[in-house]
Amino acid sequence: MDAETAEQMMEATYRALREHGYADLTMQRIADESSVSKATFHYHFDTKEELLKAFLDHLVEQFEGRLASEAGDPRERLDAFLDAIFAPAEDVSPIPLMELKSQAPYHEAYRERFVEMDERLREVVAEAVRDGIESGQFDDANPEAVARFVVTAINGAHVREVALGETPSETRRMVERYLERELGHTTGVVA
Amino acid sequence: MDAETAEQMMEATYRALREHGYADLTMQRIADESSVSKATFHYHFDTKEELLKAFLDHLVEQFEGRLASEAGDPRERLDAFLDAIFAPAEDVSPIPLMELKSQAPYHEAYRERFVEMDERLREVVAEAVRDGIESGQFDDANPEAVARFVVTAINGAHVREVALGETPSETRRMVERYLERELGHTTGVVA
Repeated sequence: MDAETAEQMMEATYRALREHGYADLTMQRIADESSVSKATFHYHFDTKEELLKAFLDHLVEQFEGRLASEAGDPRERLDAFLDAIFAPAEDVSPIPLMELKSQAPYHEAYRERFVEMDERLREVVAEAVRDGIESGQFDDANPEAVARFVVTAINGAHVREVALGETPSETRRMVERYLERELGHTTGVVA
Repeated sequence: MDAETAEQMMEATYRALREHGYADLTMQRIADESSVSKATFHYHFDTKEELLKAFLDHLVEQFEGRLASEAGDPRERLDAFLDAIFAPAEDVSPIPLMELKSQAPYHEAYRERFVEMDERLREVVAEAVRDGIESGQFDDANPEAVARFVVTAINGAHVREVALGETPSETRRMVERYLERELGHTTGVVA
């Protein structure tokens, strides 16, 4: 399929999931959110699960794309990472992702993708911390432990946003204070 | 209804939610998990939502019950709290709770209960921290900030258990190291 159709299908999946929730999600409702026909959806994806797997792959790629340009200064990379997570450019809600996460115990294919996402998130943080320690910008710390901490707090922020309706800014400040304490005064990260 | 019937209904709700997931949950499937008839379920609860509201209230009460006996030493209270969260006595999975949390954006009644649970959790931690600071056992710290941190990490641990299949012991160790750092050497908490 061409890139434009693929993009339309992924956006429709996001919107339908946001609108109806996983329990009431059907191929028809997803097709209704786009100008692509239900037949075309079925041509490319045998089942709803196949489509949602592609959707999760798409999210991972999108996230990678947003971080790809961030080379160089470890401090700026951490900052860009927190921006990408806590202040997404578009009107992106964590609700669809949380719905799919709660389905992971029933769908190994979803779980595999969440495990991959998690490893990638921790890798981005750990690499920035490692580089910053090597260059002497950051205090000595355990990069993997810091990464796990930051990513667990992000997981928590998403639940809080979905379950409690809380904005993620509280968690971001918490993570920034934590990084300041672990890595020393990282003015790029701490506002 | 008598206490035994109520208890049976709540246990059946937990099992049906764990077994079928929210998307495929019906009154019939819940009744099938108990010796209580579907008619009796319908007599007490008009809708599935009403039943799930009662189920969430029941979870809050259960949790309160487990913590009620923990008076006295702030260090032991924090330890008991972490035990209650990270090592529940029975075979309790966070999966049913996570499914309902992902439904909170669509059901204000669920959200209200999650907000209440969250406040209660933070209160328990903040009170123990406050008492420990007053008695001189803990270093000076901001009790509300520590509580928010601990509870956000717990939220994160639950997502990780559900989405990634990770055991919560990693997060527990992380929280214990955090408490040690914030409050000083709290041997009761850190194993």
